[in-house]
Amino acid sequence: MSDFEAARLTVRLGAIVSNFRTVQRMAGPAAVAGVVKADAYGMGMPAVARRLAEAGCDTYFVARLEEGVALRPVVPGARIFVLDGASPDAVPALISNRLTPVLNSLGEIASWSAAAREMGSTLDAVVHIDTGMNRLGLSAGELGVLAEAAKRLDGIRVVLWMSHLACADDPDSKMNRLQLDRFQTALAMLPPAPASLASSGGVLLGKDYAFDMVRPGLGLYGGNSQPTKPNPFATVALLHGRILQLRQIDKGESVGYGATFHAARPTVLAVAGLGYTDGLMRVLAGRGKGAIGGVRVPIAGRVSMDLITLDVTDVPEGKRRVGDPIEFFGDTITLDEIAAAAGTAPYEILTAMSRRVPHVYEDAA
Amino acid sequence: MSDFEAARLTVRLGAIVSNFRTVQRMAGPAAVAGVVKADAYGMGMPAVARRLAEAGCDTYFVARLEEGVALRPVVPGARIFVLDGASPDAVPALISNRLTPVLNSLGEIASWSAAAREMGSTLDAVVHIDTGMNRLGLSAGELGVLAEAAKRLDGIRVVLWMSHLACADDPDSKMNRLQLDRFQTALAMLPPAPASLASSGGVLLGKDYAFDMVRPGLGLYGGNSQPTKPNPFATVALLHGRILQLRQIDKGESVGYGATFHAARPTVLAVAGLGYTDGLMRVLAGRGKGAIGGVRVPIAGRVSMDLITLDVTDVPEGKRRVGDPIEFFGDTITLDEIAAAAGTAPYEILTAMSRRVPHVYEDAA
Repeated sequence: MSDFEAARLTVRLGAIVSNFRTVQRMAGPAAVAGVVKADAYGMGMPAVARRLAEAGCDTYFVARLEEGVALRPVVPGARIFVLDGASPDAVPALISNRLTPVLNSLGEIASWSAAAREMGSTLDAVVHIDTGMNRLGLSAGELGVLAEAAKRLDGIRVVLWMSHLACADDPDSKMNRLQLDRFQTALAMLPPAPASLASSGGVLLGKDYAFDMVRPGLGLYGGNSQPTKPNPFATVALLHGRILQLRQIDKGESVGYGATFHAARPTVLAVAGLGYTDGLMRVLAGRGKGAIGGVRVPIAGRVSMDLITLDVTDVPEGKRRVGDPIEFFGDTITLDEIAAAAGTAPYEILTAMSRRVPHVYEDAA
Repeated sequence: MSDFEAARLTVRLGAIVSNFRTVQRMAGPAAVAGVVKADAYGMGMPAVARRLAEAGCDTYFVARLEEGVALRPVVPGARIFVLDGASPDAVPALISNRLTPVLNSLGEIASWSAAAREMGSTLDAVVHIDTGMNRLGLSAGELGVLAEAAKRLDGIRVVLWMSHLACADDPDSKMNRLQLDRFQTALAMLPPAPASLASSGGVLLGKDYAFDMVRPGLGLYGGNSQPTKPNPFATVALLHGRILQLRQIDKGESVGYGATFHAARPTVLAVAGLGYTDGLMRVLAGRGKGAIGGVRVPIAGRVSMDLITLDVTDVPEGKRRVGDPIEFFGDTITLDEIAAAAGTAPYEILTAMSRRVPHVYEDAA
């Protein structure tokens, strides 16, 4: 295999550790769990989890059961919390892989309690209280039932009460204080155990929101979950495509599918080896940018499945050659910048990354 | 491992074969190559290529060198054409894996010719002539040079002259006829060899565009590349998520991140186990639909990374239970419908599919 790569995602593992430390400073003495669902936000779960474990992280969150099963051998001694919960047919795999479910309803509490009874032992669980997200978690009604009948928790050792903020990206939203109050009220009704409310956005809301554990995802990967403020996190992910071909076209010629780009002047085009199947969303056509040596260049015409064309006319000739890298996000173009161009959030920019793009890990921060 | 799955992509391999036969009928006697780049448009390259080979397909297109290397052991006897071409550092891997590059410039022709000379043998190649896409391929100027100096092809056996249509999705576009004329003019200037112009959209333009080989991608996977006309292809891909939790909320309550959905009536919500990291694009919020037993239900609030919430109030109670599947595309919701809701093309809906979603293969058409 040659070392030719049409595109490359560079992942700075050292920067992930540095972001982990930043969260420890901001949220301490609360513990910091690593959120590594969605293949560690597209960065590659095994490498990320291993490096976080070296840095002292002993608790991980995943979404799917299958993600927990894949993570178990990577961090054999750590706690793994599975957000999807414990549907009856998931119970055997949860137990055999020593995975701790996040129980989202009285029904899941009942099936986990029954599993403990059958085993004649005690099983750990996280219990998720909904405080206004209206997605997963015990509703206010279910919370009342549980508070009245703690017997429902027989055989279950609650290692964490958790909830999830809906509007943590907006520090001015009244939802934050409302959910904080509801969570504190819920905790007062329930048997004592550690508690967790904040993911990356919640960490930035301050220590009131930190409780005993915080659960950063986006922040670990360098994203800014409160776009109105400066980003406290170091850049982790850099996406580059190589120039496969340069092409000079005349004024008036069109480019790409649908011939949507028309050259307003004699134009030099660079074709780079990545496209929307690699995660450069199609919506970036006419709105997104690349960067060559720190200089931004516009995308010309539609984003293709495997290719993208840029107008590099304004880049000096010696600085644009076949084989040269073009950055799509990284040290020049932030995740916030490309997310704004795509009309989405930095989360989706990261998780859209395809496994087709080789992931190259660097130790440096 | 339990058979619990939060989401599932069903791939009907029999329908892929049936679509391959449809293209044979429409384009015959032209040969039909299988385009399996981008992990066979997200369907899983190994299973798809193996099944196409059983159906008689002996030529495949991929984009990246790495894709060709992965495909070689799957179809050991077939021709594999690599669209990215033959940059100098790709040459050794191309040769050792018996991959045929699509040469996109005089520079690539020179390096491939040099490789043949060094080996003292002849190497196969496809040569790509740009006829108006202005992406990859020999420009008009380069074509003129090549036509004057066939010696540049020394050591190269051209197995295909190819070009690519920019506007084949629009049968009324004048670009189609213009590119056809330019391609015929180019062929008349060059040494005789088989020729190819049409991918799925080109197939639908009629036999004038078929030449000796057509290269369907989207059509094989059931997509309609001319959305203004009925789709001649059978449905291949079906995406389902399971209901993880049902929740009753009051009038006025909000749902999800940013609290963007407000219930206008007492509302029943279903939370399904897939999100934008699985390929259900975030832009579908407020625009996309799911389907339960053939009945469409709207997405409520934002699409989360791992979860999606739907308003199932209007589905009869017995037909919405925890564990039930919700279709996001398939037999009820076409790729065109979800692509329109997402403001994109069906291509991106398919290639956005994540490997996190288990792929389940069915033989039926």
